[in-house]
Amino acid sequence: MLGKNDNKDALMKKMQIDKAFTLMESGPVVLVTTTDGKKDNVMTISWTMVMDFTPRFAITTGPWNYSFATLRKTKECVISIPTVDLIDTVVGVGTCSGADTDKFEKFMLTPVKGENVKAPLIKECLANIECKVIDIIRKHNIIVLDGIAAYIDDKRKEKRTLHAVGDGTFIVDGRKISRKRMMRSKLPAGV
Amino acid sequence: MLGKNDNKDALMKKMQIDKAFTLMESGPVVLVTTTDGKKDNVMTISWTMVMDFTPRFAITTGPWNYSFATLRKTKECVISIPTVDLIDTVVGVGTCSGADTDKFEKFMLTPVKGENVKAPLIKECLANIECKVIDIIRKHNIIVLDGIAAYIDDKRKEKRTLHAVGDGTFIVDGRKISRKRMMRSKLPAGV
Repeated sequence: MLGKNDNKDALMKKMQIDKAFTLMESGPVVLVTTTDGKKDNVMTISWTMVMDFTPRFAITTGPWNYSFATLRKTKECVISIPTVDLIDTVVGVGTCSGADTDKFEKFMLTPVKGENVKAPLIKECLANIECKVIDIIRKHNIIVLDGIAAYIDDKRKEKRTLHAVGDGTFIVDGRKISRKRMMRSKLPAGV
Repeated sequence: MLGKNDNKDALMKKMQIDKAFTLMESGPVVLVTTTDGKKDNVMTISWTMVMDFTPRFAITTGPWNYSFATLRKTKECVISIPTVDLIDTVVGVGTCSGADTDKFEKFMLTPVKGENVKAPLIKECLANIECKVIDIIRKHNIIVLDGIAAYIDDKRKEKRTLHAVGDGTFIVDGRKISRKRMMRSKLPAGV
């Protein structure tokens, strides 16, 4: 899946895994990739939650998403974090189905081979987190994921993520405020 | 708990319950109030997720939060949505414990009586959602909540919410982009 001119290490920098929860805690809308070995697929998900710093994540999905069957079978995925310049990709991916569409082709996304899972990283995204499914809470349609490796494209200029409101509008990241000193006692070591 | 000069209906406007998920989907850091009947308490939570439009929410919390015992016992809480002007309240509430602190008093928060739960609404917040605990997934420290009534202070000028990054910094809501037309097929009716 890695294009012949693509070298993951030239595109993305590895990130300390115990900092990867910070990619998700602010609640960006994300793309989640899967592969059944024959075809890569990708879905848009805004119903996500950090569950632990390790990192552990929850996503809400179920049989209504075509990717769900592959997720359940392969127990792997990649969470890719898009930025504001990709808004039409995010909405487009979220409004068609892998059942009848090759979304990587349709939205000109470049799959990049990861290190630990077969699901592809997305070259165009700001960050990518390789994940293993560690539990499926069927009663609530929650999938529990452990992030096992994370990569960030730190040469990318546009770093503002998108937050889905759920009514068809999206909030773009605004300014950043630090309260690191006040919060020191609550932060995990090294973050 | 309602101050003698406070009238909920003068402070807040009732919101259609099936639109209340939009208060949470973008991932704002929230305050969660509880009461044991004697003392009100409040905690800061950024590990939250929308699970359904109805609305249904998940929050990750456990015995390490003083509020957890009350939540488990009373099966009620209020999710209050603070805005950027309340950042020091959000951080302050998140870095002390109800075990030894009256946080409503310390942070000068005004408890307002709701309609369906005993846990208080917070006057100073942009929005408040009365919630019932419908399940506790002990294995994963997830509490599942159904929102049963929601209120918004639509006269409030500052409406920008905060997104916790998890490293002691916060992202403030920036500009809003609409893709309502592209997303029409995926939006619940009336949203």
